[in-house]
Amino acid sequence: MGEESTMWNFEGDKHLNKASACTIRSFLTTVKENLNQNDDRPVIPLGHGDPSGFPSFRTAQVAEDAVVDAVRSAKFNSYSSSLGIINARRAIAEYLSHDHPYDISPEDVFVTVGARQAIDVLITVLARPGANILLPRPGYPLYEARAVFSHLEIRHFDLLPEKAWEVDLNGLETLADDRTVAMVLVNPGNPCGNVYTHEHLQKIAETAKKLGFLIISDEAYGYLAFGSTPFVPMARFGSIVPVFTIGSLSKRWMVPGWRIGWVLTSDPNGILQKHKITECIKSYIDISADPSTIIQGALPQILKKTPESFHSKTLNLLREAADMCHARLKKIPCITYPSRPQGSMFFMVRSSIETQEFLRA
Amino acid sequence: MGEESTMWNFEGDKHLNKASACTIRSFLTTVKENLNQNDDRPVIPLGHGDPSGFPSFRTAQVAEDAVVDAVRSAKFNSYSSSLGIINARRAIAEYLSHDHPYDISPEDVFVTVGARQAIDVLITVLARPGANILLPRPGYPLYEARAVFSHLEIRHFDLLPEKAWEVDLNGLETLADDRTVAMVLVNPGNPCGNVYTHEHLQKIAETAKKLGFLIISDEAYGYLAFGSTPFVPMARFGSIVPVFTIGSLSKRWMVPGWRIGWVLTSDPNGILQKHKITECIKSYIDISADPSTIIQGALPQILKKTPESFHSKTLNLLREAADMCHARLKKIPCITYPSRPQGSMFFMVRSSIETQEFLRA
Ligand SMILES: Cc1ncc(COP(=O)(O)O)c(C=O)c1O
Ligand SMILES: Cc1ncc(COP(=O)(O)O)c(C=O)c1O
Repeated sequence: MGEESTMWNFEGDKHLNKASACTIRSFLTTVKENLNQNDDRPVIPLGHGDPSGFPSFRTAQVAEDAVVDAVRSAKFNSYSSSLGIINARRAIAEYLSHDHPYDISPEDVFVTVGARQAIDVLITVLARPGANILLPRPGYPLYEARAVFSHLEIRHFDLLPEKAWEVDLNGLETLADDRTVAMVLVNPGNPCGNVYTHEHLQKIAETAKKLGFLIISDEAYGYLAFGSTPFVPMARFGSIVPVFTIGSLSKRWMVPGWRIGWVLTSDPNGILQKHKITECIKSYIDISADPSTIIQGALPQILKKTPESFHSKTLNLLREAADMCHARLKKIPCITYPSRPQGSMFFMVRSSIETQEFLRA
Repeated sequence: MGEESTMWNFEGDKHLNKASACTIRSFLTTVKENLNQNDDRPVIPLGHGDPSGFPSFRTAQVAEDAVVDAVRSAKFNSYSSSLGIINARRAIAEYLSHDHPYDISPEDVFVTVGARQAIDVLITVLARPGANILLPRPGYPLYEARAVFSHLEIRHFDLLPEKAWEVDLNGLETLADDRTVAMVLVNPGNPCGNVYTHEHLQKIAETAKKLGFLIISDEAYGYLAFGSTPFVPMARFGSIVPVFTIGSLSKRWMVPGWRIGWVLTSDPNGILQKHKITECIKSYIDISADPSTIIQGALPQILKKTPESFHSKTLNLLREAADMCHARLKKIPCITYPSRPQGSMFFMVRSSIETQEFLRA
């Protein structure tokens, strides 16, 4: 019986390839494949929101100690409960309560395998047949990938470079209809390095309420604001519109390999409960990958004991890096930009070389 | 503008609740809700494949040390590549090569967030419209949950209690058709405690080949065989039929909270590649949660340096526990069982009290 005699019933589904084609990894592959192999000029890797490989961006000593203690205690080797162990949820709630109008309850928090899984959960739960979601352009491509995978229609709204990458609110109103379930906001911004003001966030919240959709505020870069605009969590506007805030250890603690993130639900009016979104989140989490119990066990120490000096050192480093980029980039004639970054780890520029040309150059 | 004036566009999807209703957590909730609150007899928790809370089931010292070293080195704080870091993939390949006819290549291994994510990946990739999958009855309910979620039709084949829980091969032939993409095997078995012989596995492989579907061999309890039948990895039969083997640190090292598993692809004839399954796995992993880099960094030490004495101690403990259960259970008239467990961490019995009665008792 040779292999050729068997008719195999399985076959890969192209739809999956379509979903993953949206990711940064896939763009990078395309760029690399189009590089001229005969050109010996070096390629400068511009990173991808992960500075943890550089010695000056080493995580806090207390964070390392907390994980080591968690391992040595042998208390965090068991399965986590699906929403996360209660002490981790409580620690996140306290951490997020610092600059919040009221105390956040651990009940409003669940733990995820990084912000990546938070995106998976929220997009999956919101994707119903016929629904659509508003995503920022430029944005973070994993939202596109997950939406394509879940058959959730994507509509792009613009971020306005001349207005410090603010959301085009008029555009938003044109795009939305009664099947629009949510909009995504990335603040501090990837890839634009923007940080939104309190006023702008409030306007977004009011627009969302008017149009009937909720807000997913991706704050993976939360508190990484080094410019003149202070970081304001979107959760403050939860009484106007239901807000899911996505957070993570990855960026502020520079440990993306530890894979811990979270979602905070801000919905004092109980709208998500009423519309069965909360219930569906629980159901989907029940059948999804659990976050590491070890890192969850370390989380209370990490969030409470990391000294302010660690965070201010990070902000200084990021500010210096942004200044350095600015100093160099302004000498390159074909590169322009409307504003310097105020937060996150990205610097968005415009190249006047056409992409086609650029890839062939 | 009161909350009531807004028409919200989002709504939870009942389909997600249907998927999660299949899980063990959901069964447990039903049992708990049906307990007679006025009955003060104590409830005996029978565990759920996670003995890590008991001091006698503490993981190996070298495993703890390896994770601590990985944290202290600060070398594993970065994002993992999507299929896993190469040293982890190589270590798994070497570990699985021990009793394999040929050396396994790291290329044939990818790392997952526990066996749970491995199940997610494989079910998702195989679920095409119209396809069906054969699942064992009794089985591990996460397969049902993920199949329901992915709209993959489920067909159950029986495990035969009188034949040491062997697969009902005749039943399999009746169930399968040309849309049957795969069958799932759990060996050592959850929940039946069975361990399959080389001969039976070979017959399964030949049947699968004849009917044109691949095999998912869930070996989360791999090597946990303490009876007279030695554990045989299904991967040995990869030249007959393509096999995905699911493995995990969770059970053999008793650290389910560490969340590391893997998938080994055994397909020397390149059938999965040809049918684009391999490509789709890569695509889906690109948009899924990554496994912890820290534990991946520790994996080479864990897999190579854990002493044989640790594993034999575990087997002795499990054998003693099974013997103890046997000694007690045989004194309970309403409980019967065809055979004692040979592996994994489960003891399957038949209760002659009807479930309805039992829940009301
Ligand atoms: C905007 C944004 N959201 C989410 C993520 C994923 O973060 P995590 O490492 O927590 O999964 C990233 C990572 O680059 C990001 O830039
Ligand atoms: C048969 C089987 N497969 C997979 C799993 C999931 O294992 P992991 O902890 O590696 O996710 C379990 C856990 O109980 C199991 O019993």
